Amino acid sequence: MADAKAQKRQKFENVFAVLRDELLAYLRQEGMPQDAVDWYRRNLEYNVPGGKLNRGLSVVDSVEILQGRALGEDEYFKAALLGWCIELLQAFFLVSDDMMDQSVTRRGQPCWYRVEGVSHIAINDSFMLEGAIYFLLKKHFRTEPYYVHLLELFHDTTFQTELGQLIDLITAPEDHVDLSKFSLEKHQKIVIYKTAYYSFYLPVALSMYMTGIPHTAQNDPYALAQSILIPLGEYFQVQDDFLDFAQPPELLGKIGTDIVDNKCSWCVNTALAIASPAQRKVLDDNYGRKDPAAEARVKALYEELGIRARFAAYEEAAYKRIVALIETIPEKPQAKAGEVVLRREVFKVFLDKIYKRQK
Amino acid sequence: MADAKAQKRQKFENVFAVLRDELLAYLRQEGMPQDAVDWYRRNLEYNVPGGKLNRGLSVVDSVEILQGRALGEDEYFKAALLGWCIELLQAFFLVSDDMMDQSVTRRGQPCWYRVEGVSHIAINDSFMLEGAIYFLLKKHFRTEPYYVHLLELFHDTTFQTELGQLIDLITAPEDHVDLSKFSLEKHQKIVIYKTAYYSFYLPVALSMYMTGIPHTAQNDPYALAQSILIPLGEYFQVQDDFLDFAQPPELLGKIGTDIVDNKCSWCVNTALAIASPAQRKVLDDNYGRKDPAAEARVKALYEELGIRARFAAYEEAAYKRIVALIETIPEKPQAKAGEVVLRREVFKVFLDKIYKRQK
Repeated sequence: MADAKAQKRQKFENVFAVLRDELLAYLRQEGMPQDAVDWYRRNLEYNVPGGKLNRGLSVVDSVEILQGRALGEDEYFKAALLGWCIELLQAFFLVSDDMMDQSVTRRGQPCWYRVEGVSHIAINDSFMLEGAIYFLLKKHFRTEPYYVHLLELFHDTTFQTELGQLIDLITAPEDHVDLSKFSLEKHQKIVIYKTAYYSFYLPVALSMYMTGIPHTAQNDPYALAQSILIPLGEYFQVQDDFLDFAQPPELLGKIGTDIVDNKCSWCVNTALAIASPAQRKVLDDNYGRKDPAAEARVKALYEELGIRARFAAYEEAAYKRIVALIETIPEKPQAKAGEVVLRREVFKVFLDKIYKRQK
Repeated sequence: MADAKAQKRQKFENVFAVLRDELLAYLRQEGMPQDAVDWYRRNLEYNVPGGKLNRGLSVVDSVEILQGRALGEDEYFKAALLGWCIELLQAFFLVSDDMMDQSVTRRGQPCWYRVEGVSHIAINDSFMLEGAIYFLLKKHFRTEPYYVHLLELFHDTTFQTELGQLIDLITAPEDHVDLSKFSLEKHQKIVIYKTAYYSFYLPVALSMYMTGIPHTAQNDPYALAQSILIPLGEYFQVQDDFLDFAQPPELLGKIGTDIVDNKCSWCVNTALAIASPAQRKVLDDNYGRKDPAAEARVKALYEELGIRARFAAYEEAAYKRIVALIETIPEKPQAKAGEVVLRREVFKVFLDKIYKRQK
């Protein structure tokens, strides 16, 4: 089982090497100096693979489910390419977010802008990760009838994510704590725009375009998919926020820093919504401070307020709500020969991976 | 005359206000918090208008020349919109370049990232300037047969400009002088990729798409336009580099800083190509130093090497070469009724604006 997962990952990673080489061949063809080609290679290799690759792999999984069969070689390559485009988009965001947040490490290595000799060049490097998406889509999808849909989907999703990042940056600047700017409503906006669109709707919508599912004026399957995947992404991020506080580092795989980093987390927003004036003062005095004692006081307050029980209730309600949404899709869809239709299975796979996850 | 120019600019600027309001309406429609809407407004207003607007205005001019008549109201709006998309692209580059170069002022005001409270948020703000392009193109050009060409043109040009910026950044880092990395060949690559594509080819190609000029397998008019506009852009940037050194500040309208900023300028590359070992040492010891005396020594060497005369010769040769390229376009093109064809006039207007300019 673990072996099958590793094989799947390896196969997906092999496609990255092909795409990287296509990008570098373009630079060479344009007569770029060798040091620029080498730089771009290092940018791609340092920042694009190396994560969990959940988003990218989920495009391949979703295409397989929608087709209802194993993929041919060319079909696999194209699905994986779309997956890597999400990973490129994410790399674009992560390289730049790390600069904006002045983060220190990412995926167990120094953030790219902190690598010797990189510094501010990382801004342009992040642009070139985004640029790679459109180069690859043009090279491999230009003649497909859904090409323009792919372009618009990436444009729309990119802009939505940037909007989420903007709200987050002005609501929770790392160096200025003002909890009066926080609210569960703002938290919801941030997680939907900053995470849910690109992490959940984007991979499924890409797989739907690739398998030829058409837009329709009535009951548009893309709108239906979005109506399920945005709540799913919201649940995922709330859980992420909760685990950052509640999960021991040895289970989480990293040390949670949301409290000291003044993050607009589901936990603090839930606490703010139910705190007494005295409890509110504890939050105002201790949240977002680079001080372990202050962090411990916030954590103690979370326990006092019963954040664990509130999350358990949230999780159950979210799970039930999403299952009900998935059930609005016909169970045994009637597809004509050669026609691909939306299937519950696509969404169930996502939900099963997320529900009660430990890290 | 000056009044006509001011009126033209005013009419163009009025379109910006419409586009800004469309972008802000989208944010409101998506339920963004008021402070995020206000922030985006300030980002757009601070960074997009306020420049010379040459690139944006040249789309309108080129569409008028190609149509051979004054534009109708809707036609004008669409041409101006495409012009503003170039200005948005430029704003995306300038906001981020200023951060990468640690610049202090831009267009007579503090660089955006140096405005109180902005700082690193400027990175995401620059993304949202780029994102505006695709929002506007989708809103207004989605149903046009050339829509996908517009998208690809912006993608290609953006990536080319980022490539130029990459070579520039690794060839001429502000804080580390190494003239052995410089060459006229690298300078040419930088100016073509970083400036010529987006400043010269992009506005004309946009106007060609808008007027319905088709791609052709033989003698493609877009390839022909590019073969003229890339040398034109290269000439423009060489001149820019020369004026930075040679033009008195009261004529240039700013103080040239290329020498102290270690810029990979045409002047230093020309000097390097002809310097004796002793002269080369003067450059190695004095170029890129934040020291007026060192700058004066470089300037004296430029005079000694006859950079002025070399530029005059370059300019005459470039002018003749570009005139000859323009003459490869048929003088009286045979257009069928309703058909638009490429005209020399489009390119002559650019060349006349540039030839022997003083600032």
